[in-house]
Amino acid sequence: MSMSDPALSRQRTSLPQETLIFRAQAPLMTEGGVALGPLEIAYQTYGTLNAQKSNAVLICHALTGDQHVASINPVTSRPGWWETMVGPGRPIDTNRFFVICSNVIGGCMGSTGPASLNEATGQPYGLDFPVLTIADMVSAQAMLIDHLGIDSLFCVAGGSMGGMQVLQWAARFPARVFAAMPIATGARHSAQNIAFHEVGRQAVMADPDWQAGRYLENGTRPAKGLGVARMAAHITYLSENALQSKFGRKLQNRNARTFSFDADFQIESYLRYQGESFVERFDANSYLYLTRAMDYFDLAADHGGSLAEAFNGSQTRFCVVSFTSDWLFPTAESRSIIHALNAGGASVSFVEIDSDKGHDAFLLDVPDLFATTGGFINAAAKARGLEVTS
Amino acid sequence: MSMSDPALSRQRTSLPQETLIFRAQAPLMTEGGVALGPLEIAYQTYGTLNAQKSNAVLICHALTGDQHVASINPVTSRPGWWETMVGPGRPIDTNRFFVICSNVIGGCMGSTGPASLNEATGQPYGLDFPVLTIADMVSAQAMLIDHLGIDSLFCVAGGSMGGMQVLQWAARFPARVFAAMPIATGARHSAQNIAFHEVGRQAVMADPDWQAGRYLENGTRPAKGLGVARMAAHITYLSENALQSKFGRKLQNRNARTFSFDADFQIESYLRYQGESFVERFDANSYLYLTRAMDYFDLAADHGGSLAEAFNGSQTRFCVVSFTSDWLFPTAESRSIIHALNAGGASVSFVEIDSDKGHDAFLLDVPDLFATTGGFINAAAKARGLEVTS
Repeated sequence: MSMSDPALSRQRTSLPQETLIFRAQAPLMTEGGVALGPLEIAYQTYGTLNAQKSNAVLICHALTGDQHVASINPVTSRPGWWETMVGPGRPIDTNRFFVICSNVIGGCMGSTGPASLNEATGQPYGLDFPVLTIADMVSAQAMLIDHLGIDSLFCVAGGSMGGMQVLQWAARFPARVFAAMPIATGARHSAQNIAFHEVGRQAVMADPDWQAGRYLENGTRPAKGLGVARMAAHITYLSENALQSKFGRKLQNRNARTFSFDADFQIESYLRYQGESFVERFDANSYLYLTRAMDYFDLAADHGGSLAEAFNGSQTRFCVVSFTSDWLFPTAESRSIIHALNAGGASVSFVEIDSDKGHDAFLLDVPDLFATTGGFINAAAKARGLEVTS
Repeated sequence: MSMSDPALSRQRTSLPQETLIFRAQAPLMTEGGVALGPLEIAYQTYGTLNAQKSNAVLICHALTGDQHVASINPVTSRPGWWETMVGPGRPIDTNRFFVICSNVIGGCMGSTGPASLNEATGQPYGLDFPVLTIADMVSAQAMLIDHLGIDSLFCVAGGSMGGMQVLQWAARFPARVFAAMPIATGARHSAQNIAFHEVGRQAVMADPDWQAGRYLENGTRPAKGLGVARMAAHITYLSENALQSKFGRKLQNRNARTFSFDADFQIESYLRYQGESFVERFDANSYLYLTRAMDYFDLAADHGGSLAEAFNGSQTRFCVVSFTSDWLFPTAESRSIIHALNAGGASVSFVEIDSDKGHDAFLLDVPDLFATTGGFINAAAKARGLEVTS
């Protein structure tokens, strides 16, 4: 999702990975009224669960993320997507906490999704997969947490779509969430965000190789459509300033304009690469389903139109983080959450971090993010009676 | 380009139209080094040229605009695209001024473009059409203005890509431009704007019906790709606030989410309509060429890296206008122009208009725009010795 940062890569230390699959005993009843089963959830864990089972942290990933939060991604061979935040000595310290991260249902990294086999037909689901919601993702995660024997999570954390899951967890299972860190997110998807997602979906569906969603059986892949969707989305993850300072109007391996439709500009070359590399690792139908789930997210609407109602009387401690240059989830979205939390009487700290890195800042090397979340985690750990390392 | 506004439509009074074609005597040498000919320019005029030929106003249209600035568009049967600004009693008053508006070359409303016949092959140009620049558009307009026998234009005005042409006119032909009104524009295309254009071009080119640009001979049309391009672009013409207040999360003709990929949300339905209606009126290859021309625009680069140099010693009077919620050409772009004009010693007034209508504000019913431009035009007319109506 982000621009690679050599300085960051140098300091990364991927943990050994341990891929696990949880097979649910019963189907999941989706918000749309479909019994989804058999249901599998692919997940990773890092660190050790303590005897009291009080040190578990659930990390929720974003739209194109996965369970490989702090270990090498076996598909891309790249470091985990949040190694800046999760690992030994990091804000979410795997020496202290038992970290769980699962691929969301609807995804394409091992959890049941539209590319999974539909037992009713013997074919991949395709568009027969039920449209899911953020609440459905959280329901599935709760089944996994039950399976792990954990009553109460010390913390649920995530950015963007991950942050939506954090808010959903806190609203739905307040007694099971001691601390919550929704980062660079919102309690509902705005009209502009829905609009960008709709452009992406239409780009995928416009590709004849999409085959009305049956491309796996037909041996095609809507690579061009998904590439265009990714290019459009990628612009929204960055800030105008970041694009201008990183690329500006610099030309790509040439001294002059070619008067053609080649990728004359570095920004064009960069975007094309983002599109092409994305289609290597992501399923087009998953992209449709996960964007749809984000569009459908509206926590206030689920609580009679009152976001405060969603958090009324919550004992969870919240740390809400936004970034100044994030125009996908601008600070106003976080402020709405804060107002609701305050109205609901919840304990909340809010930090708007000054960054020119746009929405992607939550994935990047932003020291203020580490200081903010690290401090919050330490205070919460102390309140939870967890040993604090010096 | 804009959301329809019933109140605005009511007050519109389309002028009788007079479609004209200018056939250039000689080919145009493009910046890319191609002799483009035969060259035709489709244009409209409104009002009467005075004996001194001192009251001519050239209107430059935006990316998807055309010559029908103040008269019914024969393709869409809709009012002219700038009837709020141009017409009897409007800021650019056709009772006082002789208004000229031509379809840009590379366009698809009568001027020579990629859908025109390439005499060398007997087929439409397609991608054999030369990649053009804003300067090439202005060169062609200058041939038209020569043909009309006009030495000096009273005013050159336009928004967005039209504003780029205004700046190019003023930089290239300072003695021929008495007054200039670049609105909602910039002196170069930013990385983010190039990025959005590249997404649009890739969407068109991803459509197999595009046929490597030869769709006209092959009897196909890249309607899906062009529709996606238009959807993405359309988002950038509006503001987040405008989208939120107009559409928010309102559902389209239904009471609940359908748990499908239908256009549940009004914003989705609206965007799909924008895409579908656009492909009825616009040529896909023209879209490629005109977006490319905008991307290539960089007035400072054409003047040794100094924008001030572009306007050094200019006697033209400038009125620069930006809109607070325009994120395609934010006010910072206009400020760069202002700084350059000031450094070059030019006469300039600058107004940032408070509007939540985004980039499209320049096309809409924004009284502050009419007051600003009307006042500027009147003062310039007085300085030019043109009779001022009371």
